[in-house]
Amino acid sequence: MPRTRRKFRLPHPEPTDALTYARFTGVPTFMRLPHITDPEELEVALVGIPFDGGTTYRSGPRFGPRHVREQSAIIRPWNPVLQVNPFAKHRTADFGDLPVNPLSIEDTFRRIEKGIQPLLEAGGRAVCVGGDHSVSLPLLRAVGRKHGPVSLVQFDAHNDLWDEYFGSKYSHGTPFRRAFEEGLLEDGSVLQVGLRGQVYSEQDFDFARAHRVKMVTAEEFHSQGIAVVQRLLGAFRGKAVYITLDIDVVDPAYAPGTGTPQVGGLTSVQMLELIRALRGLQIVGCDLVEVSPPYDTGEITSLLAANLLFELLCVL
Amino acid sequence: MPRTRRKFRLPHPEPTDALTYARFTGVPTFMRLPHITDPEELEVALVGIPFDGGTTYRSGPRFGPRHVREQSAIIRPWNPVLQVNPFAKHRTADFGDLPVNPLSIEDTFRRIEKGIQPLLEAGGRAVCVGGDHSVSLPLLRAVGRKHGPVSLVQFDAHNDLWDEYFGSKYSHGTPFRRAFEEGLLEDGSVLQVGLRGQVYSEQDFDFARAHRVKMVTAEEFHSQGIAVVQRLLGAFRGKAVYITLDIDVVDPAYAPGTGTPQVGGLTSVQMLELIRALRGLQIVGCDLVEVSPPYDTGEITSLLAANLLFELLCVL
Amino acid sequence: MPRTRRKFRLPHPEPTDALTYARFTGVPTFMRLPHITDPEELEVALVGIPFDGGTTYRSGPRFGPRHVREQSAIIRPWNPVLQVNPFAKHRTADFGDLPVNPLSIEDTFRRIEKGIQPLLEAGGRAVCVGGDHSVSLPLLRAVGRKHGPVSLVQFDAHNDLWDEYFGSKYSHGTPFRRAFEEGLLEDGSVLQVGLRGQVYSEQDFDFARAHRVKMVTAEEFHSQGIAVVQRLLGAFRGKAVYITLDIDVVDPAYAPGTGTPQVGGLTSVQMLELIRALRGLQIVGCDLVEVSPPYDTGEITSLLAANLLFELLCVL
Amino acid sequence: MPRTRRKFRLPHPEPTDALTYARFTGVPTFMRLPHITDPEELEVALVGIPFDGGTTYRSGPRFGPRHVREQSAIIRPWNPVLQVNPFAKHRTADFGDLPVNPLSIEDTFRRIEKGIQPLLEAGGRAVCVGGDHSVSLPLLRAVGRKHGPVSLVQFDAHNDLWDEYFGSKYSHGTPFRRAFEEGLLEDGSVLQVGLRGQVYSEQDFDFARAHRVKMVTAEEFHSQGIAVVQRLLGAFRGKAVYITLDIDVVDPAYAPGTGTPQVGGLTSVQMLELIRALRGLQIVGCDLVEVSPPYDTGEITSLLAANLLFELLCVL
Amino acid sequence: MPRTRRKFRLPHPEPTDALTYARFTGVPTFMRLPHITDPEELEVALVGIPFDGGTTYRSGPRFGPRHVREQSAIIRPWNPVLQVNPFAKHRTADFGDLPVNPLSIEDTFRRIEKGIQPLLEAGGRAVCVGGDHSVSLPLLRAVGRKHGPVSLVQFDAHNDLWDEYFGSKYSHGTPFRRAFEEGLLEDGSVLQVGLRGQVYSEQDFDFARAHRVKMVTAEEFHSQGIAVVQRLLGAFRGKAVYITLDIDVVDPAYAPGTGTPQVGGLTSVQMLELIRALRGLQIVGCDLVEVSPPYDTGEITSLLAANLLFELLCVL
Amino acid sequence: MPRTRRKFRLPHPEPTDALTYARFTGVPTFMRLPHITDPEELEVALVGIPFDGGTTYRSGPRFGPRHVREQSAIIRPWNPVLQVNPFAKHRTADFGDLPVNPLSIEDTFRRIEKGIQPLLEAGGRAVCVGGDHSVSLPLLRAVGRKHGPVSLVQFDAHNDLWDEYFGSKYSHGTPFRRAFEEGLLEDGSVLQVGLRGQVYSEQDFDFARAHRVKMVTAEEFHSQGIAVVQRLLGAFRGKAVYITLDIDVVDPAYAPGTGTPQVGGLTSVQMLELIRALRGLQIVGCDLVEVSPPYDTGEITSLLAANLLFELLCVL
Repeated sequence: MPRTRRKFRLPHPEPTDALTYARFTGVPTFMRLPHITDPEELEVALVGIPFDGGTTYRSGPRFGPRHVREQSAIIRPWNPVLQVNPFAKHRTADFGDLPVNPLSIEDTFRRIEKGIQPLLEAGGRAVCVGGDHSVSLPLLRAVGRKHGPVSLVQFDAHNDLWDEYFGSKYSHGTPFRRAFEEGLLEDGSVLQVGLRGQVYSEQDFDFARAHRVKMVTAEEFHSQGIAVVQRLLGAFRGKAVYITLDIDVVDPAYAPGTGTPQVGGLTSVQMLELIRALRGLQIVGCDLVEVSPPYDTGEITSLLAANLLFELLCVL
Repeated sequence: MPRTRRKFRLPHPEPTDALTYARFTGVPTFMRLPHITDPEELEVALVGIPFDGGTTYRSGPRFGPRHVREQSAIIRPWNPVLQVNPFAKHRTADFGDLPVNPLSIEDTFRRIEKGIQPLLEAGGRAVCVGGDHSVSLPLLRAVGRKHGPVSLVQFDAHNDLWDEYFGSKYSHGTPFRRAFEEGLLEDGSVLQVGLRGQVYSEQDFDFARAHRVKMVTAEEFHSQGIAVVQRLLGAFRGKAVYITLDIDVVDPAYAPGTGTPQVGGLTSVQMLELIRALRGLQIVGCDLVEVSPPYDTGEITSLLAANLLFELLCVL
Repeated sequence: MPRTRRKFRLPHPEPTDALTYARFTGVPTFMRLPHITDPEELEVALVGIPFDGGTTYRSGPRFGPRHVREQSAIIRPWNPVLQVNPFAKHRTADFGDLPVNPLSIEDTFRRIEKGIQPLLEAGGRAVCVGGDHSVSLPLLRAVGRKHGPVSLVQFDAHNDLWDEYFGSKYSHGTPFRRAFEEGLLEDGSVLQVGLRGQVYSEQDFDFARAHRVKMVTAEEFHSQGIAVVQRLLGAFRGKAVYITLDIDVVDPAYAPGTGTPQVGGLTSVQMLELIRALRGLQIVGCDLVEVSPPYDTGEITSLLAANLLFELLCVL
Repeated sequence: MPRTRRKFRLPHPEPTDALTYARFTGVPTFMRLPHITDPEELEVALVGIPFDGGTTYRSGPRFGPRHVREQSAIIRPWNPVLQVNPFAKHRTADFGDLPVNPLSIEDTFRRIEKGIQPLLEAGGRAVCVGGDHSVSLPLLRAVGRKHGPVSLVQFDAHNDLWDEYFGSKYSHGTPFRRAFEEGLLEDGSVLQVGLRGQVYSEQDFDFARAHRVKMVTAEEFHSQGIAVVQRLLGAFRGKAVYITLDIDVVDPAYAPGTGTPQVGGLTSVQMLELIRALRGLQIVGCDLVEVSPPYDTGEITSLLAANLLFELLCVL
Repeated sequence: MPRTRRKFRLPHPEPTDALTYARFTGVPTFMRLPHITDPEELEVALVGIPFDGGTTYRSGPRFGPRHVREQSAIIRPWNPVLQVNPFAKHRTADFGDLPVNPLSIEDTFRRIEKGIQPLLEAGGRAVCVGGDHSVSLPLLRAVGRKHGPVSLVQFDAHNDLWDEYFGSKYSHGTPFRRAFEEGLLEDGSVLQVGLRGQVYSEQDFDFARAHRVKMVTAEEFHSQGIAVVQRLLGAFRGKAVYITLDIDVVDPAYAPGTGTPQVGGLTSVQMLELIRALRGLQIVGCDLVEVSPPYDTGEITSLLAANLLFELLCVL
Repeated sequence: MPRTRRKFRLPHPEPTDALTYARFTGVPTFMRLPHITDPEELEVALVGIPFDGGTTYRSGPRFGPRHVREQSAIIRPWNPVLQVNPFAKHRTADFGDLPVNPLSIEDTFRRIEKGIQPLLEAGGRAVCVGGDHSVSLPLLRAVGRKHGPVSLVQFDAHNDLWDEYFGSKYSHGTPFRRAFEEGLLEDGSVLQVGLRGQVYSEQDFDFARAHRVKMVTAEEFHSQGIAVVQRLLGAFRGKAVYITLDIDVVDPAYAPGTGTPQVGGLTSVQMLELIRALRGLQIVGCDLVEVSPPYDTGEITSLLAANLLFELLCVL
């Protein structure tokens, strides 16, 4: 992504040194980075979106940002696989949480869009931590305002292309249908990886097919491996791509803390590989959603999410 | 409450016999009662209202009815303190859950009011299990349609008379202010027991005082005992009274599974005494709310709620 | 399996629609199906057998049916891998739990056999949820009464062919030795998949060898994959086959909630593949046992069990 | 209790010194005492009876002895309230667990009676840790063989005088009815403290009344305090008394880890007072039962049990 | 405490408004206050001391500050019992955590003393959150350097006056013996409330008696109530008093998350009363220690600690 | 390893028979073996080292030995994969725990070295259960005193070759750097398997490279499999090899209960394979460390550790 050379007032933000200050000390921010709320000072903003009013089964992701922050205390800066220190590469900080309204999904969507816009306008990118998957819609709206329609890589057990639940159009099961309808996504520009589990009927994939969504089911991924995804990602090079990662793409053994867990999912190793396969894409934003701490055990879901978040930062 | 003599088609509903069928067997209904959805067949309906879209802090009470049902499997029918078998006295059954919309508080309110009305029209009474405290408002609306404005006995750590949160009028912190505004409650006819904990400012009690709400704080109750409540309840005899029990009135040691726990609360013994003190009131309906299973430990909150529910049935 | 064309009085049973009634609402039955206790109305009956008096280490599976019911609320009807909606294909419902006697294994065996027989006589098939593995013996007795000796496919970490524990012949470690002795299983007609872990001595496999049990150890399965099982299953085509799935065949990371967990087990993906490999067999009954909710974490074992149960329904 | 002066071969057993060996070190025995299995060497034997085949609702107490052992590691030897070091007063050790048969309640009863007898014959007393409440029957049989019928002080939420469950005579709900029938308890010699909760019908107390059981309900105890019990205990002085403590006498907030928890129970403070009130009785044996670790939270039930066990040792 | 009138550069710190920004949003600081690390800007500093290298049984309090911060998100500013908003009264903020060394207790003591000194020198007071009880010693050293020997009010199950463990002088069982030896506490100026449980021998109270420590055991407090403490506190008026609150003074039912839990403890109501009884004392500093999140259940210990912390702020 | 033929006084130690005494009975020792503290009687000693004063993030491994003992109750003696009963082959017993000092890492190191020496001198081998990874240093010192510098096979997510933390030289992140510096390990003789996750900088591997440490990262192992390790192990045949297994080499899904969990790790199946690949090496000692029970879920980490311990015994 071509970025204008920006000027900054503050020194380059660094994570607190864990060889001096133990990892369990201090006010927990994402990756132990400084808490900076000035959009002008950031190239990459880690943003919490603690909203779960879009969930249709278990609630809980409103506490996602808080727990991912805590578990991210264990992250060190150098990625020996990708050979990168993302904090050295981009000015990255904890931007804090957006002020959601837990009582209204529509009001929250407005607040998210409004909250993220200054970051984008200042030339930064937002790496968001949900919250449930409904938050991707206002994020795509904000991104769309700057970049126009984008390509989407979605890691998810479910395609989230349903039309409505209980008569409501907005929920964590419908964001990408709405995004297509609103022109935020282009036909043929969406890749979904990790789909699996039962659906309501065989017609549930009609919308996806009509919009030429590329799908790699979990079964296909388990039998064919990373190569099948790498091949499909070829078509995304050079485009503005948005990444959305629903933690339920991972198997409940690895990520029990989520709202609609689905067995037969990916392992942590596979998920790391998948994110690393995104290297080289022109990523305009991303989100990691559906971490539901009340359903987590031993904080392993938040810990995995913190690590996946770090890997996402490494491929920006 | 004067009740018309009603005719019923089905035999008198009884809990499944636990000396023959072990308590861990079977599809769990409230108190192991039959699941009956015909309002004409019931005098007392146990109704689940699994909605938590009104919570401002932790979510979770949407699973309240499910867990209270399970823990109620341990309830036996005879209450040796009150000397009553409530299932023998009233035709009581599990009416099931109302079809809430987790994505919209307004739509849910409509569904609750509409769902409860047939029961009231048929001459029955609803004993509802939340769900968060916002559900009391549509319940009071339904009750009000039949009985006009009612008196209210509220067991709660918080008075739930705030005006709004995040710019929204409906939430679990505002139901009784709305109820006053809508004329569902009369000035001087509300008793709140167990209030405690910090508030936002000393003005937080102004609305209560303006509407002559009678308050017994937890501190007052701890020092003065049940007598102070018994005395105030005198004024409620002969009136149509609605009972609302927010489980957070109980101390977190006894009821950890709730959304806004407040230390310094009541013990289980005190809460049992309080419900038993309601005997003789003309109760037109009641609800038990804010049981949040994801935050429970050892299911003790759901177990306590199931027992309190039984005691409520005993004083009907 | 050739089935006589049956006549039914009730409409075809359907799961409650989750797009209208949220998954957390209602009295939890298996797969949100109706609760039907008339054997004449069912082709496939989901039956709970909440007995754990046969356990030799941890107890707990008596709560298996209850938790599998709850977690099955997330199941949708269409299986996109097997391209089938099992509820549309067979009249399927929750038959409830059999009335076990937790104080006596012999009395419980009688009750199970007696409880399951009307279903079989009416031409239905029982898909049972334990309970510990001892319940397979009375189930095989009931099946044997109708079908004579059957073939057995057993997914299990242990072969459960021990002779006795503490001087007792009946337990969850001995059902299949008893079944061989009682003529319910024929030599050479049993396949065990997933065996692993320590045994008492190298003589522990003598009985299995004497009865020509086909064994695929976990180590063999991990190195050779599904093909080794598919090949062996060839010999089972056309025969009356009973399926028994002890959840401990799966690794404790995926299924911690079981009584005698064994490391080095199968993943959820492997287990799904294995069940799907059963398609085309003439299955006369099946059970899924040893889900022990008190030892589960995050309900992932019950969730996996619910999904495996669904897959079993899909291959009937 | 008249005890013959005994000779011992081993040195006086002492708990491991915690100022030198940290409390988390070593193989966990009761109170960090030596593990001694020779009945001739002990005056007081701490005995585990890990049997839960008598439970009618939740299972789990088979792990009671193990967890009470672990939590007892925190116990120091001097009781400043009773001014006694029980380990200095009596030769006390961990006798280990009796070899129960989890598959048969009758066989287990035989094993318990046989296992405890050598201790009693050698002149020692057994302080037993269950296991469920059914184990009190064989213990009373063993005690009865030596002492004839005894008096009983029972701390319990339930009177455990039911006749049968599921057609079975032996369970954790029936031991004291059987004991009366077998002549192990005399009419008028049983005191039950802490009874509460629902029963099946008002006839449930008939048996107790017929045998002149003295009952102090939880409600009576809460309103009248320790004095009511002290008065009734007067009649037990000078008699051979057996103490049985079902941990469910304590409220679930203090003791969640039990099989049939009942709200409205005693606090830890009240329970300590009650045991201390036993001082001066001629105690011939005692048991502490129904600690169910799988249902415990934070091990607080096992910790409380370990402390109550210590207090019991202090009043011997 | 006479305080010089100070000048401040920053605006008066306020907690984030929870009616606008939901309580689950944002980077968690103590009481949602700003994070301010400049000692010159604060009158009262909330300071985390995440050290547990002094524990002799369970470790874990190193995570105390983090969890108390989180749970303090529920605190509102106005205390209706004490009629005070402590944040309005004093400039109060989250000062962050001191940089402890988990590998060395001596080095940590130096870091604590050095870290707290600038606050005291600037005229502020530190309200510290442990960490284990060993941290009170360096805190008393820092306080002593400014104020000379102080009086001490200690809420605790244990007197923490032991001499050594495992040959080591510094631990969470020895801080106040060291403090006496170092001249930081004067004879007759220490009050301990809530002592209970077993000790090693009757000599364990010799040191306390020699230094005329005033002791109110839990048993005395349970029988005599708050009056006995109020009477003893009379002698502390007008003196420089340090408050130390070991959360294990509270019963494990209310505070399971601690390292050496002791049954028979105080309730939350009693503990609130006790802190409120401190009003009017000249408090020069305080600490709340031994919250051990890994052993907590449902976060109720951290929640109680957060509330007690608030009450402490209210009596400053 | 050449061993002198030794003479023994006691009979050959055997695990308690689980077909007679249920697995949940008795005082829990490692593998239900006798507790023998006489070094002269043992060829292989299972030794607990409950020290966690070297942890830099989460504490807790001080309870590792206790929980591994408990979970090892499920181990049976015959390993069908390796075709060996290790208890029959070597005189093996539970040696108990070494008397660590939780307040001092240096004092603990002395105690460990001193405690292990008599075992080695008597000709036995120690299989140690930590505790945190710092304990490997004193163990290597003791081993080095007998065998001189040894080769090391290390299964670990981290290389533990850092120089210091918080200014301290001894911790769980530094043992092998110290061991190299002290001449306990020879250059080129260390193999590390399973390394992964972020490090502080790319210089973090300099020390390892300088000492010619052979590294197989988790990524390499996942893509190349066991063969890559088997090839490297070739160079270790015939040498005195010490094995150290940090449980965090396994993925958090399989081993959540550890202090510095790292996603992307090994499965239980892979770890079993790795240990089995050690067969034929001349193993002079081994340790299994960093099991942290307070962070475990469902005890699966302790269970896995118990099984890995058994496999280690099988390759001795």
